[in-house]
Amino acid sequence: MRIVLDAMGGDYAPREVVAGAVEAARAYGIELVLVGREEEVRAELDRHPAAGLPLSVVHAAEVIGMDEHPAMAVRRKRESSIVVGLQMVRDGQADAFVSAGNSGAVMAAATWLLGRIPGVERPALATVFPSRVGFFLVADIGANTDCRPEYLLQFGRMASAYAQHVLRIPEPRVALLANGEEETKGDRLVQEAHALFRQAAGLNFAGNIEPKDALAGGADVVIADGFVGNIFLKSTEAAAEVLLGMLREELTRNLWNRLSAALLRPAFRRLRRRLDYREYGGALLLGLRGVAVIAHGRSDARAIRSAVRVAREATLQGAVEAISKALQA
Amino acid sequence: MRIVLDAMGGDYAPREVVAGAVEAARAYGIELVLVGREEEVRAELDRHPAAGLPLSVVHAAEVIGMDEHPAMAVRRKRESSIVVGLQMVRDGQADAFVSAGNSGAVMAAATWLLGRIPGVERPALATVFPSRVGFFLVADIGANTDCRPEYLLQFGRMASAYAQHVLRIPEPRVALLANGEEETKGDRLVQEAHALFRQAAGLNFAGNIEPKDALAGGADVVIADGFVGNIFLKSTEAAAEVLLGMLREELTRNLWNRLSAALLRPAFRRLRRRLDYREYGGALLLGLRGVAVIAHGRSDARAIRSAVRVAREATLQGAVEAISKALQA
Repeated sequence: MRIVLDAMGGDYAPREVVAGAVEAARAYGIELVLVGREEEVRAELDRHPAAGLPLSVVHAAEVIGMDEHPAMAVRRKRESSIVVGLQMVRDGQADAFVSAGNSGAVMAAATWLLGRIPGVERPALATVFPSRVGFFLVADIGANTDCRPEYLLQFGRMASAYAQHVLRIPEPRVALLANGEEETKGDRLVQEAHALFRQAAGLNFAGNIEPKDALAGGADVVIADGFVGNIFLKSTEAAAEVLLGMLREELTRNLWNRLSAALLRPAFRRLRRRLDYREYGGALLLGLRGVAVIAHGRSDARAIRSAVRVAREATLQGAVEAISKALQA
Repeated sequence: MRIVLDAMGGDYAPREVVAGAVEAARAYGIELVLVGREEEVRAELDRHPAAGLPLSVVHAAEVIGMDEHPAMAVRRKRESSIVVGLQMVRDGQADAFVSAGNSGAVMAAATWLLGRIPGVERPALATVFPSRVGFFLVADIGANTDCRPEYLLQFGRMASAYAQHVLRIPEPRVALLANGEEETKGDRLVQEAHALFRQAAGLNFAGNIEPKDALAGGADVVIADGFVGNIFLKSTEAAAEVLLGMLREELTRNLWNRLSAALLRPAFRRLRRRLDYREYGGALLLGLRGVAVIAHGRSDARAIRSAVRVAREATLQGAVEAISKALQA
């Protein structure tokens, strides 16, 4: 298996991307191709004992910045690491693409270069998210801000297939994110989608789910339009971050607290790990004829390695085929 | 000042409502009227040393359950504590109404009985929410699930007037909740509202705000439609709850952790208090010709007392007049 990495994407590129590639090559024994400005990438590579690892570099002269207009940047910068990397997947030279760069640009380029699976109206961005008891898959987390009910149903089918075949959850429980469990809850979009989900064959529909029940592990797949899904994701992340910050404030308020807190360092470290987005590894674009994974813009080496793991599993378990089949049925 | 309390509303009514009324009467020196099944309410009152406190009971034979259909229940149960209590405000027998009962029913009854301030298209539900550095006001958190851009602008005007006159924030910074700061972010509703807010005179518009910046204290007023606002609120609450649960798990994992954590009990207590919704005191319906406060369904005595405090301040500071003026300008 060969996975292409956008060496220039993300707040800490190319340093952390290259470091993550080295970690991933060692951990998973797969071939990794770093696409980007060759000199910069090689200079980073030289800082690692990477001899013998299946790592190569492909030159791409341009870089799409984090704040560039996605569609315009992709159209103009044909020599960018994002476009060159995705072309390799399109042309069969690689199996999957991973980037921590401009997520809008990755979505635009991936949709353009890989194309949609027949029947897909809108590709959706999905990510695994930690719950109290394990994890669940959320889609869409930002690819489509204004949706029709049929799109949500399709997100549900695609995410359910992914959960079943890649995450290995038998008969995943699929729920619609809403402001209450009753079917009368939600905005008009959710209410209309609810009716569609109810009638849909081959889906294990669990009804509406509130944020608290989603975080408690009440569903395996949680569906929302890209705006609401994104607000959900960002709100929970932000709340966790603020709370950990407040906790730190309280625990360092005086010497007594600082000393007592030191006794609990392993406990706090475990807690941090359970919440660490870097362990969950990036978001996958569902509905394309190829595997494209978008990692967090703030990705460090560990986050990059996790994103490679997601791309590897999606490829190994045949995510594209599973989604194709689910949509045909 | 006289405030009417729905003695039958909430998961722990009438016990906790009555206990909260006793606390509030003592703390604020205002007159409180408990509306509900007289015998039950008096039996609860007898458990408190309430002699001499300005507390009275008004009988209401019916109770609207938490799961009843709001509009239907209000229409049918004219003798319910919600309807009877709000009638007292309408008829000038009381200044404000507080309920921890069926929030949809309170909204429906309050809109019907108190009426809207002239020019108000949709009343909005607003609540104060803790940020890293203080607090901010969010509206709408659930009264209107499908909105037009003009509604959001009106929520902004009403919430800004409330923040200025009741919360005493000079020139409150008003922001739109979105998935990014740029004005191109948001769904269509937010984008169109953004354009309206930009042109609006008399508003200190701070642009779009992401959940993390809202929780960091980047705005004084955060505006969203009722569906998104509700998801935002519930997601942050749920994340905080899950995280505190995980923290508890880690800190009780073994004897060492339990003993060390005991040393930090005051720090954890302070943290809990900073996050405690009971301190923030319920949501206010903006845009009505009277003060109606909706407390959390799970309210205990302290939460009820806080909700009474919110109703008292809104009345004292002339929230209704301030909002009227802001809409006329």
